[in-house]
Amino acid sequence: MSAGNSFGDGFRVTTFGESHGAALGAVVDGCPAGLNLCPNDFIHDMQRRRPGYSPATSSRKESDEVQILSGVFEGLTLGTSIALIIQNIDQKPEDYAHLKEIFREGHGDFTYMAKYGIRDHRGGGRASGRESAARVAAGVIAKKILTELNVSVASEALYCKDALSRAVSENDSIGSTVICTINGLKAGIGQPVFGKLDAALAGAVMSIGGTRAVEFGLGKKTANLRASEHNPIDKGILAGISDGEPILITATFKAPPTINMGGRHDPVLAPRAQVAVEAMVAITLVNHIFASFSDTVQSVKRSYNG
Amino acid sequence: MSAGNSFGDGFRVTTFGESHGAALGAVVDGCPAGLNLCPNDFIHDMQRRRPGYSPATSSRKESDEVQILSGVFEGLTLGTSIALIIQNIDQKPEDYAHLKEIFREGHGDFTYMAKYGIRDHRGGGRASGRESAARVAAGVIAKKILTELNVSVASEALYCKDALSRAVSENDSIGSTVICTINGLKAGIGQPVFGKLDAALAGAVMSIGGTRAVEFGLGKKTANLRASEHNPIDKGILAGISDGEPILITATFKAPPTINMGGRHDPVLAPRAQVAVEAMVAITLVNHIFASFSDTVQSVKRSYNG
Amino acid sequence: MSAGNSFGDGFRVTTFGESHGAALGAVVDGCPAGLNLCPNDFIHDMQRRRPGYSPATSSRKESDEVQILSGVFEGLTLGTSIALIIQNIDQKPEDYAHLKEIFREGHGDFTYMAKYGIRDHRGGGRASGRESAARVAAGVIAKKILTELNVSVASEALYCKDALSRAVSENDSIGSTVICTINGLKAGIGQPVFGKLDAALAGAVMSIGGTRAVEFGLGKKTANLRASEHNPIDKGILAGISDGEPILITATFKAPPTINMGGRHDPVLAPRAQVAVEAMVAITLVNHIFASFSDTVQSVKRSYNG
Amino acid sequence: MSAGNSFGDGFRVTTFGESHGAALGAVVDGCPAGLNLCPNDFIHDMQRRRPGYSPATSSRKESDEVQILSGVFEGLTLGTSIALIIQNIDQKPEDYAHLKEIFREGHGDFTYMAKYGIRDHRGGGRASGRESAARVAAGVIAKKILTELNVSVASEALYCKDALSRAVSENDSIGSTVICTINGLKAGIGQPVFGKLDAALAGAVMSIGGTRAVEFGLGKKTANLRASEHNPIDKGILAGISDGEPILITATFKAPPTINMGGRHDPVLAPRAQVAVEAMVAITLVNHIFASFSDTVQSVKRSYNG
Repeated sequence: MSAGNSFGDGFRVTTFGESHGAALGAVVDGCPAGLNLCPNDFIHDMQRRRPGYSPATSSRKESDEVQILSGVFEGLTLGTSIALIIQNIDQKPEDYAHLKEIFREGHGDFTYMAKYGIRDHRGGGRASGRESAARVAAGVIAKKILTELNVSVASEALYCKDALSRAVSENDSIGSTVICTINGLKAGIGQPVFGKLDAALAGAVMSIGGTRAVEFGLGKKTANLRASEHNPIDKGILAGISDGEPILITATFKAPPTINMGGRHDPVLAPRAQVAVEAMVAITLVNHIFASFSDTVQSVKRSYNG
Repeated sequence: MSAGNSFGDGFRVTTFGESHGAALGAVVDGCPAGLNLCPNDFIHDMQRRRPGYSPATSSRKESDEVQILSGVFEGLTLGTSIALIIQNIDQKPEDYAHLKEIFREGHGDFTYMAKYGIRDHRGGGRASGRESAARVAAGVIAKKILTELNVSVASEALYCKDALSRAVSENDSIGSTVICTINGLKAGIGQPVFGKLDAALAGAVMSIGGTRAVEFGLGKKTANLRASEHNPIDKGILAGISDGEPILITATFKAPPTINMGGRHDPVLAPRAQVAVEAMVAITLVNHIFASFSDTVQSVKRSYNG
Repeated sequence: MSAGNSFGDGFRVTTFGESHGAALGAVVDGCPAGLNLCPNDFIHDMQRRRPGYSPATSSRKESDEVQILSGVFEGLTLGTSIALIIQNIDQKPEDYAHLKEIFREGHGDFTYMAKYGIRDHRGGGRASGRESAARVAAGVIAKKILTELNVSVASEALYCKDALSRAVSENDSIGSTVICTINGLKAGIGQPVFGKLDAALAGAVMSIGGTRAVEFGLGKKTANLRASEHNPIDKGILAGISDGEPILITATFKAPPTINMGGRHDPVLAPRAQVAVEAMVAITLVNHIFASFSDTVQSVKRSYNG
Repeated sequence: MSAGNSFGDGFRVTTFGESHGAALGAVVDGCPAGLNLCPNDFIHDMQRRRPGYSPATSSRKESDEVQILSGVFEGLTLGTSIALIIQNIDQKPEDYAHLKEIFREGHGDFTYMAKYGIRDHRGGGRASGRESAARVAAGVIAKKILTELNVSVASEALYCKDALSRAVSENDSIGSTVICTINGLKAGIGQPVFGKLDAALAGAVMSIGGTRAVEFGLGKKTANLRASEHNPIDKGILAGISDGEPILITATFKAPPTINMGGRHDPVLAPRAQVAVEAMVAITLVNHIFASFSDTVQSVKRSYNG
């Protein structure tokens, strides 16, 4: 099995970076040549993901500027690997010195130590929510490819604002939900058996820190439906392959576990996590779309002969 | 992206077979040498998966005999690829002739046609629930490896028996739930970021036909919990890596969509699907366990020097 | 790293089978739907690979019949995984009983035992030349795809017939060479850096038992050429990507190591190995061709929109 | 098939960077935790690879400083992905302005344009020899892991010094050869069939720019040897698996094609390419060694139980 820091095949994203190291970033391999791409393209989604952007998110100042180190020439992608770097400008490791000997409940502190025998205790290291910045940056490129195909990915964060206010006032945090919809995807995208589109999307979304459930369509509610009720509304993905209808994904996020410890922390995940959900969904779609180009002899001939 | 019929890397399962073709089966690559394996090892789980085994499943007679064509010599695995074959002895394609022009609601009939421009209309072809027989066979080998490590995977099927009786009497079917637990897994198993253990498990389980939701631990309920409530009970997998505690996975299955069409069909998925859930969980665990052997310099030296 | 019995991604071949087990075969995943395929398609190449076909090959009778277990319906590929089985009908394990305690020089007997702690001593087991039958069967499908694109793969076996006669009369064997040419491949096929077309072809061909060298174009001779001499004739693959000119691959095979042991053995590899070389080259080309469909935004749009 | 800029699975190297872009680098994923690593570790091999280091190499000043952006904490690897960056400090794009409309013979200029429809014409872009700097940096980490296991990789560059002097004086270049030896590798490393150790090494070495042949042991000479002569000296890798003896790899490099164009260019590849050969060999070995940890049930139990 490959080490865990890359995702996808034909469109492969490899990320790196600890929360309090020098920088984090992503290498995007397999982006088609000829796509317009410049640093400004990243601003919108990086802003949406940034702590402090919404009243519900923490006040840590994170750098949002994405530098492009390779793979782009005169504003167009070259087809070669695109390296994206985000500097960590707001490192305050002294904030975390007291954590050196502490394994925080609900975090990866203990599990990373159990796995690697060593950890970067400064703010979660690689397991920090800061890691998602690299996903979001890579997701911007995936979304641009989808836009060329008239496929869109949108999301919505659900949580109770009153519950949030009460939790914040008590130095606590709350759980939340992200609804993500895919629109415009044509029928026939997805692989059989293990490579089902919903299987790939579930793995992709569940890889975002704090996710505890992923559902498609009516999700858990289908346990209580008869086929006669469900069949007519069971749309989006059937047998792992898109049917041309909108696809509905619901992700449940636990309450962010960092509480009662000082520092700057999010009281709810959905408002920022939704951008990461969109990114993972978009990256997954691009991979599956590329794979579909060799589905039939006819499409192989058309694609090869240009 | 790879075509969708294989799963895993270090322990890779590749399956094949249409529901009404000559046979279906699996090639298991990466099984360690020296494991006891004989055809009888497959009987128990193949029986559990078989239609008609429980009163809640269909009456189709499916062959359950697994033949081993390669990779085993004098009762021990050789380390080479293990081919498993299950003949389709109860083919009645004439039962399905009337389906040639019909795209059944809730099935993959339309989506397979949209993808490939051709389909085997006899009973679902590759998208049939019969496909899971190959997963279950491969899962038997994965479970045997886990047994050597004192790791166990068990499951439970949940559905309302009264609702089932009523649905059957009305030629309808019902949704259901599978609870799967992993016991005995040591702390430190799982990869960071995209390779999280829960992400891999979610993708693995969601690839089983009819799954509509996958949850870990308290799952969807975490949306309504504060961190102060959830942190102390948030066990099993943290930051994508096992913590040594039992792991709880909940999968929701839709009502099997084949209704009102004659033929032999299941009125509820969980009783048979649970065996496939166990298989996918076991296969995923073996892959992640193998990957963990190079986690530290110390373990690399120990593993290399023997 | 994946276990070694599969090759390719978009078009993935997984093989299995020991030389004296029940059967060997291949699962071909990612074959486009709509390709004509029937058992007769395999006869020609299986015959070419068969021992005894040429005077230079051994007299072992090997089954050449390829059964198709899945992935084909009414003479057309379905897009799903295609299982191919070749029975071992001429097993004479008693011929090999005397080898149980012997590690033959030049064979994998010792290395397989060192790796796995167990081996099938009957005629080489998985390391036998018989293994290439599965490659050749899979290669037939790859060649059929290439034919649709007007790409051809041909080969020639080179060895000294006089040297062969003398060696056979002295119960010895000789080395040989296979020249393989690719014609009709358009410019632009191959990936950058690690995925170069020549790198992939070299790995593919070197994986055939007994290969000791792989060369492209003028190969070893380029060590003695100046750029002014070489540049004008350096054609086929440049920087890892095809230029539209024919591609010339030379593979050197050692003398088959089985000598002075009785049994039925080949005195020279090239006449049979050339079919395996063609197969591996064809499988590699199909993978790289499929990967090229997402090279540019324009091709992505064309392929997606159909 | 994955895009071409990554290599390996358990120990995966992903590189990026055009010759005249902002920077190039590598992300190394799967490095075991607890390895000593600091920027100084890279100096020696980066110096060996640098143009101008030997009298036989060009005078371009390339930055050799490797920055570590992630994956290392207080001098030890964390087990997470390690990002390595090498700035391009000596960019002189104006040197290459005249190349915008020229497809240089023997280069990737035409093939990259055929593939991507766009190229970075400044000095070869991604297809430049400068790309190997990232491989060499990643190779340093692989070598450090091998050192922990007492496995060593060494190389030698062969070319005719007189021929070189004459060629340089005539603004021409010459071909060359790299001999690489692996010492100390235990028996049993390598996968069966497609994953043979020599197949993987051949693909790895052939991916280095300018390689035209890869040989193992006696290589091409084996075409002229009888088994009775060859068997006793056929050592290193048998049936794709190491036998515990030294492994000898010979790579032939063509004359660097850039001649008669001004600029700063190498007149012979081997002196610098040998460091890239060592890097690719080391990276390949680490992957195969990691894969071997699950070869037997006994080793799986030992590795898991620690």
